[in-house]
Amino acid sequence: MRLKRKDILTIEDLDRDEIGLILSTAESFKEVSDREIKKVPTLRGRTIINLFYEASTRTRTSFEIAAKRMSADAINISASSSSVVKGETLKDTAKNLEAMNPDCIVLRHPSSGTPQILSRLLRCSVINAGDGAHEHPSQALLDLLTVKQRFGKINGLKVAIVGDIAHSRVARSNIYGFIKLGARVSVAGPPTMMPSGIDKMGCGVCYNVEDAILDADVIMMLRIQLERQNGCLFPTAREYSRLFGLDSKKLEKAKKDVVILHPGPINRGIEISSDVADGEYSLILNQVKNGVAVRMALFYLLLGGSRE
Amino acid sequence: MRLKRKDILTIEDLDRDEIGLILSTAESFKEVSDREIKKVPTLRGRTIINLFYEASTRTRTSFEIAAKRMSADAINISASSSSVVKGETLKDTAKNLEAMNPDCIVLRHPSSGTPQILSRLLRCSVINAGDGAHEHPSQALLDLLTVKQRFGKINGLKVAIVGDIAHSRVARSNIYGFIKLGARVSVAGPPTMMPSGIDKMGCGVCYNVEDAILDADVIMMLRIQLERQNGCLFPTAREYSRLFGLDSKKLEKAKKDVVILHPGPINRGIEISSDVADGEYSLILNQVKNGVAVRMALFYLLLGGSRE
Amino acid sequence: MRLKRKDILTIEDLDRDEIGLILSTAESFKEVSDREIKKVPTLRGRTIINLFYEASTRTRTSFEIAAKRMSADAINISASSSSVVKGETLKDTAKNLEAMNPDCIVLRHPSSGTPQILSRLLRCSVINAGDGAHEHPSQALLDLLTVKQRFGKINGLKVAIVGDIAHSRVARSNIYGFIKLGARVSVAGPPTMMPSGIDKMGCGVCYNVEDAILDADVIMMLRIQLERQNGCLFPTAREYSRLFGLDSKKLEKAKKDVVILHPGPINRGIEISSDVADGEYSLILNQVKNGVAVRMALFYLLLGGSRE
Repeated sequence: MRLKRKDILTIEDLDRDEIGLILSTAESFKEVSDREIKKVPTLRGRTIINLFYEASTRTRTSFEIAAKRMSADAINISASSSSVVKGETLKDTAKNLEAMNPDCIVLRHPSSGTPQILSRLLRCSVINAGDGAHEHPSQALLDLLTVKQRFGKINGLKVAIVGDIAHSRVARSNIYGFIKLGARVSVAGPPTMMPSGIDKMGCGVCYNVEDAILDADVIMMLRIQLERQNGCLFPTAREYSRLFGLDSKKLEKAKKDVVILHPGPINRGIEISSDVADGEYSLILNQVKNGVAVRMALFYLLLGGSRE
Repeated sequence: MRLKRKDILTIEDLDRDEIGLILSTAESFKEVSDREIKKVPTLRGRTIINLFYEASTRTRTSFEIAAKRMSADAINISASSSSVVKGETLKDTAKNLEAMNPDCIVLRHPSSGTPQILSRLLRCSVINAGDGAHEHPSQALLDLLTVKQRFGKINGLKVAIVGDIAHSRVARSNIYGFIKLGARVSVAGPPTMMPSGIDKMGCGVCYNVEDAILDADVIMMLRIQLERQNGCLFPTAREYSRLFGLDSKKLEKAKKDVVILHPGPINRGIEISSDVADGEYSLILNQVKNGVAVRMALFYLLLGGSRE
Repeated sequence: MRLKRKDILTIEDLDRDEIGLILSTAESFKEVSDREIKKVPTLRGRTIINLFYEASTRTRTSFEIAAKRMSADAINISASSSSVVKGETLKDTAKNLEAMNPDCIVLRHPSSGTPQILSRLLRCSVINAGDGAHEHPSQALLDLLTVKQRFGKINGLKVAIVGDIAHSRVARSNIYGFIKLGARVSVAGPPTMMPSGIDKMGCGVCYNVEDAILDADVIMMLRIQLERQNGCLFPTAREYSRLFGLDSKKLEKAKKDVVILHPGPINRGIEISSDVADGEYSLILNQVKNGVAVRMALFYLLLGGSRE
């Protein structure tokens, strides 16, 4: 079973059946990571390049572990050590890497749309591991898998996404994904963090977190990019936390079987309080665990397997 | 044969039998690195993460080579490229990594006690690859192995450790290790580098290097951390070298079959002269070689093997 | 079949037969990278260390992929994360790495002659991946392979090398290589970039690019190191480009079956125009592809294979 596409660039591109196939494939790969010998020979002799133009522990490590558990060879390239310092264009870097016959390039890049550019240039597969404020499809897929495992379905659920919607590739990918699978999505955040035209994506908009979580089955808290924040989007971290951060008091109004997601890394005490992040409703670590399975599934469905 | 513990955090924790088991296991793994095909299938499909919050060639490379020679998958994470820059807590980084099902995390961290914290938080194994000025157990184990191979025993030997005792995790681990195996240990260094209460660790204290090495079987010279030194601990490198550095002249007073160890990287001409470092008494490169074997043994004894 | 030498340090050292053996071996390894399973078991259990004291995407990645496709274990060490920051000498770093029993160290270093030093110090194989302005033998070998594949021979061809001849290890290695295999070589560049004594290497010298390319079968454009240029060697990039850059207008005077090489990364619009770099005469991406095959061949011929 393979996807009838070469690349995973966005959730917007994928249809319901493709997402379903990825999630069920990921489900079947989950047990590999629970084995003593966490490895299948499926992608032996394939070359996967992690080309990261932004720092990342979690995502790069998750893709690297996924590749190795599929028995592929994983090569890491980070911008700081790359030809980027020598002023080479992304196109040239990509064409040069392709000449070394990789099967897949996993790209993280600060500019939106770069995975699309690579996809058109290259014969090998491209997986978008986050491009600017555009999309982060493998994150949305692992979020969908996490929610589906808990509720047995996505259809009919109510999802609240809270935080800096305008600058979040995680939010965009999840809005597309949850709506495609039949959930209703509301987004909440301060007006400065709400993109214009967000309602055209098919989701509701709230300007306070209490309304958003009131009848939500899933609350997804986004990371506040403190390091990118320069005083424009909200007055202080404390102010943001008081109004939009999720703590146990705000959570009292939520449904009794609500689940809480966060793409990590979390800012404890800012967008989420420690007791909530570590509490009974939190699925944050399930998300990370599912990330490896989803990435194994993407490699499998794009690259196929020789003897499966 | 496995250790009845999940982690290797300190030499202080280990008892004599455990150290003996590690050394004999390391001994048996040494020949793997002398083969043409330097690899055993023992830990195939296991995932080992090297999580390094301090730069290191030798130690990280040694652990990585050890992992690969055991057929494990090794993942390197260094602080500069990690979520650390995004302000994530060590706990969250660790819990997130654990969610990806590693079998072992090898941690180097500038703060004493961090491996203990990780150990309590995580179900997977943790190996301390150096924590602040606290301990560096795999270094002490390779030192013990090196001395044992030369003398056939540790019991009854006299060991002199010379340098900045107060700030040296290598010194602390070795003091515990050599004393546990029955050696007598003296430490020597300037008073500014001698920790208060050092005599309670069971070792003698000298304030000049000549006394320390007089009847020593083993002289362990510590690295002077010139990059951390800001004029407080000794006046100049030259002064330090003249008083506490080991050169062939000072060595004339030593025993004829003395051996010299150094954890590296060495500052030639400061704590040790070049002719001594490269001379007949030096076991410095044996230490490095034994490092790979000791780390293979630690992985084996903690993670077990499937078909051995 | 193995080379009767331990190291690949320079093209100057190699004789015609050795170069021929490397090229034909590389030719036979090329198809491995075109397979679905891009891996042969030849060097399983061998340890190859990439020790890079200068940043590089292309070269490090090419060596790493080559090692993995031969089933060797590849370990990357870059200067920024290494003991270099602690002031260890290259000799000590090398001796320490050797104590971990690598089969081969691939060295890139900003100082000319360092691979020779390592070679004399170490029992394991050393491959020079570029040393200062001295040599870059694997680059010249992949260039020779690329030209040989196109023309079926090297003997009798006319090769023009254009750019900063004085500071280019690529130029030096290629001058040696092409002349050894019977080509005639001309170099062209501004007088400030022409080393004294260049004619003693057996090549012709031009001071304008038009003369050099007039009857050339192969034009090799060198990269202008803009990041190292501080105003001394040429007035402006624009001036350089107008006089020595290769564009379609200058190319009109060239032979109809000329081929164009560039070691990359290219500065589009400076030493080469985009239409020429991407045009029908360009073999730039073939060079990159051949790079992996040449490096697989070098590993094979130096380290041998157990069951071939």
